[in-house]
Amino acid sequence: MKTNISLEEALEQLLAYSHPTEVEMCPLNDALGRILGEDLTAQENIPPFDRSPYDGFAFRAADTATATKEHPVTIEVIEEIPAGHAPQHKIRAGQGAKILTGAAIPEGADLVVPFEKTVSKENYVTVFHGGKSGENIVPAGEDIRKGTVFAQKGLSISPPMIGLMASLGFANIPVYRKPRIAVFSSGDELMDVSEQLAPGKIRNSNSYTLMGYIKEIGAEPIMLGLARDRVEDIADLMRQGLAQADMVISTGGVSVGDYDVVKDAYPLIGAETLYWKVKMKPGSPTAAAVKDGKILLGLSGNPASAMVIFQLLGMPSIKKMAGQQNYLHEKLEVALKQNFHKQSSSRRFLRGRLTFNGGKLFLDISGEQGNGVLSSMVGSNLLADIPAGSGPLDSGQKLSAYLIQS
Amino acid sequence: MKTNISLEEALEQLLAYSHPTEVEMCPLNDALGRILGEDLTAQENIPPFDRSPYDGFAFRAADTATATKEHPVTIEVIEEIPAGHAPQHKIRAGQGAKILTGAAIPEGADLVVPFEKTVSKENYVTVFHGGKSGENIVPAGEDIRKGTVFAQKGLSISPPMIGLMASLGFANIPVYRKPRIAVFSSGDELMDVSEQLAPGKIRNSNSYTLMGYIKEIGAEPIMLGLARDRVEDIADLMRQGLAQADMVISTGGVSVGDYDVVKDAYPLIGAETLYWKVKMKPGSPTAAAVKDGKILLGLSGNPASAMVIFQLLGMPSIKKMAGQQNYLHEKLEVALKQNFHKQSSSRRFLRGRLTFNGGKLFLDISGEQGNGVLSSMVGSNLLADIPAGSGPLDSGQKLSAYLIQS
Repeated sequence: MKTNISLEEALEQLLAYSHPTEVEMCPLNDALGRILGEDLTAQENIPPFDRSPYDGFAFRAADTATATKEHPVTIEVIEEIPAGHAPQHKIRAGQGAKILTGAAIPEGADLVVPFEKTVSKENYVTVFHGGKSGENIVPAGEDIRKGTVFAQKGLSISPPMIGLMASLGFANIPVYRKPRIAVFSSGDELMDVSEQLAPGKIRNSNSYTLMGYIKEIGAEPIMLGLARDRVEDIADLMRQGLAQADMVISTGGVSVGDYDVVKDAYPLIGAETLYWKVKMKPGSPTAAAVKDGKILLGLSGNPASAMVIFQLLGMPSIKKMAGQQNYLHEKLEVALKQNFHKQSSSRRFLRGRLTFNGGKLFLDISGEQGNGVLSSMVGSNLLADIPAGSGPLDSGQKLSAYLIQS
Repeated sequence: MKTNISLEEALEQLLAYSHPTEVEMCPLNDALGRILGEDLTAQENIPPFDRSPYDGFAFRAADTATATKEHPVTIEVIEEIPAGHAPQHKIRAGQGAKILTGAAIPEGADLVVPFEKTVSKENYVTVFHGGKSGENIVPAGEDIRKGTVFAQKGLSISPPMIGLMASLGFANIPVYRKPRIAVFSSGDELMDVSEQLAPGKIRNSNSYTLMGYIKEIGAEPIMLGLARDRVEDIADLMRQGLAQADMVISTGGVSVGDYDVVKDAYPLIGAETLYWKVKMKPGSPTAAAVKDGKILLGLSGNPASAMVIFQLLGMPSIKKMAGQQNYLHEKLEVALKQNFHKQSSSRRFLRGRLTFNGGKLFLDISGEQGNGVLSSMVGSNLLADIPAGSGPLDSGQKLSAYLIQS
């Protein structure tokens, strides 16, 4: 077991055990936000045929090449092609077809002239201005070309991607199974949301916050409840979690005191401890272990500390298990909007919100930064990385920051 | 009926008919992403009592004020207070309590000194360094103070907000009902995703893309299916939609041709047309009407045009109906990453992706910008506003842009 390791080393250890789940089929209607499990190749063009973007007339560009206002050209209209109807005739020299928006260009035609630029009478249309071959024709495959990979394995399926899949006839989509993440909180002081507070007690918030984050990134939380500060209690919930889930997250019991027994529970259930304590603030008291290839992640009981570590270590691991291609947080350069008056003897992650002003990026600090201040996470979507040994920072100071789920 | 109006005028008309839905109760476990229907006031402090952030000893700061390495002070330890247990005794002069992380500070004590700075033996602890009154004590209400509004009506409920609600004992949450949005696509050329393509036909993508966007912003889509290009067919689906939903969105049939009959369906069902055509590209052919206070929004059949207008007009309306406080898109200043070679005689919205480089914001243009190119919406989260009469634009050009749902 390593102790006092860097955040980067801790993450590397966790990612080594974070394996994408298996691929399953999902109906298109339920695919929003799921992670694509295979590259998808277009079996057709979109659009499937050359089509007209306007209501107008289709004919051969060569036939009207000489048309002018003074010397217009008149063409015989041999059919009308509404959208959704296949053209019935080939267009030959001197012939054309009335064509509606979205309809397929008939064979032989290579130009569309919109209605409003023509004069038509019975079966004839007069054109005052020709055009180049291909003008006003949307070519087959303009949007997606047959044979191309239009959706890559590991992407999160967005609304327009669902539209493309529908266009291409994908009614069922291969996606990664949602990883199941079991969650429990330990601490004799904890009560559940529906209970009346007793003296000395507080209500469990960590399991609820974690459940929210886990759902938000498209995984499936399993709430195991509360454990007392006894190693057997904690080991029991860990075993329950491992039986049902791909990963088990606990909060509390990872500090240095007599009641911090999560570390003792790991060997008790036969798990190998990976590390204990990470060199950063907040969230330093944290541990991880692995059992049968499954990660057990132990977070601080302090709400803000727990959530900062969860964002930096838990999220990338779960996203990788969920099959996401981009499982690491995006790193940005931001400028501090306010002064930050504290010294940072250890490396510190500052909670804040990304704001924009005049084309530039700013970090708006989320008020109080205490380990227990969960309200500082509300609306926060940045964690700025302040190096160890930094003094107070002035507004305008450039910092590197991770963009997190808010 | 107005025609060729500005985007801003169209939006104003729609927002005037977009009323928040009624408020209903929702269990905390299902509240993620819902819109809060009332301001919530904390009925308790978080934490509920002054508590210790460390394992240590609690006593009166005055008693150890003179302590030094050479002249330490010894205190009688009268009890041990683990987290979750209420203190049993008041601390008097010369007395102290062993206290564990998260436990309540006993009455009379106003200082905690961590274990590692003391030497203890049986019922006595020796202190070599005192502290100020209040040191190492987390005050009650540090996170949330009793009586404050900790969550405002109209916010989207995030994971840390769920945690705060759990801490404060809110097991059921007042939220706005999800608006129900009925969707259909019209066009003789359309087939459904599961059908084999026939000549001249394409598959419906618009209903699927819209369904995705509607779900993503926390509303409830109702798929009505496909309508042929006949006014009675379209009117029939509009009536079905109005019977079940708060808003009806159609795609197709809003252009100038003989088959563009959506505008004719509005009077047929007794709806009042608000406008037809908006001065912008893409998406100009669009219409809206109102019937019994419910909006009917008609979008272009071209996938990209439809989605640009849906983002700019439909999204803010639905978000307002959903009760969201911030229903308008955030407006940013961005710089073009690439050259954009086209002239813009009309006002144009350019699709692209927000990227960051060196603390600045850039718009990465999403490839082909054709009206039918749905793939250009995949990954796009910006719509940049190019004024009418603009020439080709060079990379680095500053533009105002809306941040949209991607």
